[in-house]
Amino acid sequence: MTRPTPLSGFPEWLPGQRVAEQQVLDRLRRTFELYGFASLETRAVEPLDQLLRKGETSKEVYTLRRLQAGEGEDELALGLHFDLTVPFARYVLENAGKLQFPFRRYQIQKVWRGEKPQAGRYREFLQADIDIVDRDTLPPHYEAEIPLVIGDALRSLPIPPVKIMVNNRKLCEGFYRGLGLEDPEEILRIVDKLDKIGPNAVAQMIVSAGGTEAQAKACLALAEIRAGDASFADAVRALGVEHPLLDEGVAELAAVVETAREHSPGLVEATLKIARGLDYYTGTVYETELVGFEQYGSVCSGGRYDNLASAGKDVFPGVGISIGVSRLLGLLFDAGELSVSRPTPTAVLVALWSEQERAASNRIAANLRARGIATEVAPVPAKLGKQIRYAERRGIPYVWFPASASAEGGDQVKDIRSGEQVAASSEGWIPPAEDMGPRLQ
Amino acid sequence: MTRPTPLSGFPEWLPGQRVAEQQVLDRLRRTFELYGFASLETRAVEPLDQLLRKGETSKEVYTLRRLQAGEGEDELALGLHFDLTVPFARYVLENAGKLQFPFRRYQIQKVWRGEKPQAGRYREFLQADIDIVDRDTLPPHYEAEIPLVIGDALRSLPIPPVKIMVNNRKLCEGFYRGLGLEDPEEILRIVDKLDKIGPNAVAQMIVSAGGTEAQAKACLALAEIRAGDASFADAVRALGVEHPLLDEGVAELAAVVETAREHSPGLVEATLKIARGLDYYTGTVYETELVGFEQYGSVCSGGRYDNLASAGKDVFPGVGISIGVSRLLGLLFDAGELSVSRPTPTAVLVALWSEQERAASNRIAANLRARGIATEVAPVPAKLGKQIRYAERRGIPYVWFPASASAEGGDQVKDIRSGEQVAASSEGWIPPAEDMGPRLQ
Repeated sequence: MTRPTPLSGFPEWLPGQRVAEQQVLDRLRRTFELYGFASLETRAVEPLDQLLRKGETSKEVYTLRRLQAGEGEDELALGLHFDLTVPFARYVLENAGKLQFPFRRYQIQKVWRGEKPQAGRYREFLQADIDIVDRDTLPPHYEAEIPLVIGDALRSLPIPPVKIMVNNRKLCEGFYRGLGLEDPEEILRIVDKLDKIGPNAVAQMIVSAGGTEAQAKACLALAEIRAGDASFADAVRALGVEHPLLDEGVAELAAVVETAREHSPGLVEATLKIARGLDYYTGTVYETELVGFEQYGSVCSGGRYDNLASAGKDVFPGVGISIGVSRLLGLLFDAGELSVSRPTPTAVLVALWSEQERAASNRIAANLRARGIATEVAPVPAKLGKQIRYAERRGIPYVWFPASASAEGGDQVKDIRSGEQVAASSEGWIPPAEDMGPRLQ
Repeated sequence: MTRPTPLSGFPEWLPGQRVAEQQVLDRLRRTFELYGFASLETRAVEPLDQLLRKGETSKEVYTLRRLQAGEGEDELALGLHFDLTVPFARYVLENAGKLQFPFRRYQIQKVWRGEKPQAGRYREFLQADIDIVDRDTLPPHYEAEIPLVIGDALRSLPIPPVKIMVNNRKLCEGFYRGLGLEDPEEILRIVDKLDKIGPNAVAQMIVSAGGTEAQAKACLALAEIRAGDASFADAVRALGVEHPLLDEGVAELAAVVETAREHSPGLVEATLKIARGLDYYTGTVYETELVGFEQYGSVCSGGRYDNLASAGKDVFPGVGISIGVSRLLGLLFDAGELSVSRPTPTAVLVALWSEQERAASNRIAANLRARGIATEVAPVPAKLGKQIRYAERRGIPYVWFPASASAEGGDQVKDIRSGEQVAASSEGWIPPAEDMGPRLQ
């Protein structure tokens, strides 16, 4: 076998990076659970027709085939899921009778998209989603809760601060309708391109879509509004447009911004250019920037959806948000903004005087593990310097020297960073808390 | 959309089952890390030619295709991995220059096999693997360490006791060669069928493969040997066969059994009928039975391999074992042997007197969360009985009553299981440890 090479678009972490990822996931999970979200996983595959319900994404899907499937076998066509929202909506419909509503779940899983790989865009990547769904109706206060959870989750990490930008589809749609524009979805899709193509091109596209110059100007004026409190509402009203849906959207967005302002000042900003291209959002929409890394785009996005999960007369409106974990970590690793104190869980290496004394070293290791101290026994009874280098190369902070039959005195433990060495009993000794496991830094 | 139905072979857990799975995985991870295994994940896909190196498994592989791949596009053929050992061997070769050897990792991921689904056999399932690989040579004491880790890991779960059955390929091969049989691999594959087809059929097959009746009888006599200590070696020697490889295998197996006996009496048994069908094992092999559920077969299997990872002159021998997590959980859930105290992380529901007082209830929830208490706020200011039923239906043990502007006194908290209600401050109250989160039972 020749030495294999990486596969473009399918990132794999080295052990230290994986430890960092794991600790990030532990902290996200911890926060999600503090807010009462229960873990859920769905299968990796969905029937292809389900995945293709939204025409826009069809080109991203990987389809599956059993290598040995016979020509005549008419199996259900399957594809790998490209997000966690579509599978969750399907899960809710399938299991509605066994779930308690409102149902809040988090889901941390890989997703796959057959897009052309490029910096920050992978073909296989990890997402961490939270969603709250209810039966029939979903009170808007849940739209205000989502940013609190995400704010707490991301601020539990040693990473640059985040800014959550929020907007509301009803606000935009009401504004466009109040202006007299007849296809608000089309306008939304055009405004969504603002950061890419600039205001002049957006105005031109609105005019090409049948709008007047004045309407285009008003749409751009709306998109320019940003505020960290409910004062955005005054700026909207100053544009002089009226529509009941606009009022509803303004009130909902004001509640989201003010709830967040009480919880974490500076975390959330009403940003009226945020549109989110996907069609299924119907209320609040979210995007999240890492402060200082704005050029990388949103690391956490989502919104409220009313029509994603429905079967017959059963409707399950929801609101959710998704952290692009692989994308976020790839960016932070590359920028040197996130690492880990050591790439192994091991806190102690028990030295080995001879292969005959392995059982004695194993007993010491078992004693330490019984008190939660991650411990390895040296692989071979090499010279002491070599055993210490084994620990050093891995970042293992302590080496344990068992009392030897041939020498005086009892066990000793050495902190190989400071060189300090003390007598110790494997039945009582414990390292400082910060040395117990790897630390995110 | 019509209500979706489950996909045969692709199991999905309900929320309570998922909490149980998660807690099982937490405990496995904890034990693996105590032994110094670092977490690793590999991508879900491998080049198809890698997956098909072992011809036997080719029929199980799912291949991938981008739905919109053009006819002319000559992309690398990819398939989903069917185990975690083949991808790990590839990862080690690919990253050898960046890893420290001996390298110990655990890997908990889904794998996919396109087999016909049946009871306990899935098309998508979760495995938890540990492996230790070294460069050039791997000392045999690692083969003795693996059962200790698995024993600790599985005994940390509230499930029936396990028995790890071990054998050694060198022992079998040496015995068959010492008997004068010339294709020991073929004999091993025949003996592997013993439990399925019985001793008479095995003897017939050995004779058909060119063996004599006496040789067949000796092979069966070897396969009958079982012992929880090194006394199995006497039983082997009593069969009167001699070969240097046999001696080596007996010594290695004796070390595995005796190391385990010191650590956990009764956990490991030399069981000389264990063969493991896969060709790549070269030393110790493991299978694991749940006591009382022997008919379900092995829930945890593996062995030593010397030739799985090599590129040019670099060789990386290893030893590993794999817990079939989905299979084990499916079996335990079906038998009612494993469940969880509640299907949600939430310990406290904060009641809501009116929508206007939501900010006050949110503040109480934030206070409780700050001390690690998972808390939800009631979805709507319904009648108190309805709010309590919300908690009851989810197994949330406590309901918090905020001091109301309209009533006397301060906050109170009620244990809805006992009915006991006490005055409490959200800045100091803490529930008993056993109520903090769901418990495996």
